[in-house]
Amino acid sequence: MQDLKKKHAVVLLSGGMDSTTTLAEAIAAGFDCHALTIDYGQRHRHELLASNRVAEAFSVSDHKTFNLDLRLFGGSALTSEIEVPKDRSESEIGHGIPITYVPARNTIFLSLALAWAETMGAFDIYIGVNCLDYSGYPDCRPEYLRAFESMSDLATAAGVEGRGKFRIHAPLLHLSKTDIIRRGLELGVDFSLTHTCYDPTLEGLSCGHCDACQLRLAAFDEIGMADPVRYVCETT
Amino acid sequence: MQDLKKKHAVVLLSGGMDSTTTLAEAIAAGFDCHALTIDYGQRHRHELLASNRVAEAFSVSDHKTFNLDLRLFGGSALTSEIEVPKDRSESEIGHGIPITYVPARNTIFLSLALAWAETMGAFDIYIGVNCLDYSGYPDCRPEYLRAFESMSDLATAAGVEGRGKFRIHAPLLHLSKTDIIRRGLELGVDFSLTHTCYDPTLEGLSCGHCDACQLRLAAFDEIGMADPVRYVCETT
Repeated sequence: MQDLKKKHAVVLLSGGMDSTTTLAEAIAAGFDCHALTIDYGQRHRHELLASNRVAEAFSVSDHKTFNLDLRLFGGSALTSEIEVPKDRSESEIGHGIPITYVPARNTIFLSLALAWAETMGAFDIYIGVNCLDYSGYPDCRPEYLRAFESMSDLATAAGVEGRGKFRIHAPLLHLSKTDIIRRGLELGVDFSLTHTCYDPTLEGLSCGHCDACQLRLAAFDEIGMADPVRYVCETT
Repeated sequence: MQDLKKKHAVVLLSGGMDSTTTLAEAIAAGFDCHALTIDYGQRHRHELLASNRVAEAFSVSDHKTFNLDLRLFGGSALTSEIEVPKDRSESEIGHGIPITYVPARNTIFLSLALAWAETMGAFDIYIGVNCLDYSGYPDCRPEYLRAFESMSDLATAAGVEGRGKFRIHAPLLHLSKTDIIRRGLELGVDFSLTHTCYDPTLEGLSCGHCDACQLRLAAFDEIGMADPVRYVCETT
């Protein structure tokens, strides 16, 4: 149900830990939230199921899943038949632009969020990027987000007519993965609903070895809590 | 066939007069052209057929049609059930933001072109916008295009690693519709292959009364040439 007195925001929701915590932040900030999930042909389709669980758990105003088959362009391990890297060391994960980088992904996602925001008269867009753990992704940096905001004000009827200024909120931008989990727990996020693994089994069990799983497991380990999602090998 | 010695460009090709002339400009500038057509659920689906005819006539290196159903968001006469305006006067067409404006459309299209360009290592993107006849569209103005360029350099691995700078070419930006037709004819464009009407018949005949048809007809009239496409009413 939409609350007409509240300000509206579009929240990009992948179903991972970061976007789920971001949704919780948007709700805590008092926005009436419209969740946007992008089905971009990613291998980790269990994320899409997770986004449905999360949207339901938070009772968002509405939740749209947009189909966008980026496999047409290829160029990333997440959308083409390139192998997902496994068991990389922390220094390998932290440096350079990873093969899981999808060209212009956040620009495409934010553009779609912008289209929906303008259609409903909203000026606030939430995205769960952070520039610490994913320093290798160019489109997760503050200077990129500011450039997207400026462009949005020039791109839209709402911006040009001065009805408002678009704001890209990235509340996790400077948080580490452990900070994100801590913040999520404060905000009441149930992390068992989320999905992180780049290469899950057909049943949705996480592999435990891709970069995303490794970062997630290390973060839960650091705060001394068991990760509530299920992994293929739970013998460690 | 791709020519490896040539520089590559992605050209947004709708199948209308403007994008077709833009493709001709990109070829004349010496680029190996990769045409990108976006099937965004527009009513004027005959544009898509036109884009195939044009891509074939120009023997582009490749031509991809990307499905993107913007009807999910609504908000424009081109993508929802809002009536397409007919027989508006020139002053009505030229002022304000028309109902056929699709929120953030060019931003979404350019983002997809950017994704493809980065995947193939290209830095040049062509788009057939112009700011004279369509002064009402915010995303057809030079300041918008410059903002998109700056954002692109920050958004991409190619930009951040300094492999090049993205350039959004809009060779028709300051041309009137008559100038576009003249330039197209100089470059060998066969305008009978193009499609312009926002509200054609099922067979693809143009209505002659929507804003787009009126601008097109007036322009052909001004240069004293018969428009080679077919209209429903040819008695005028």
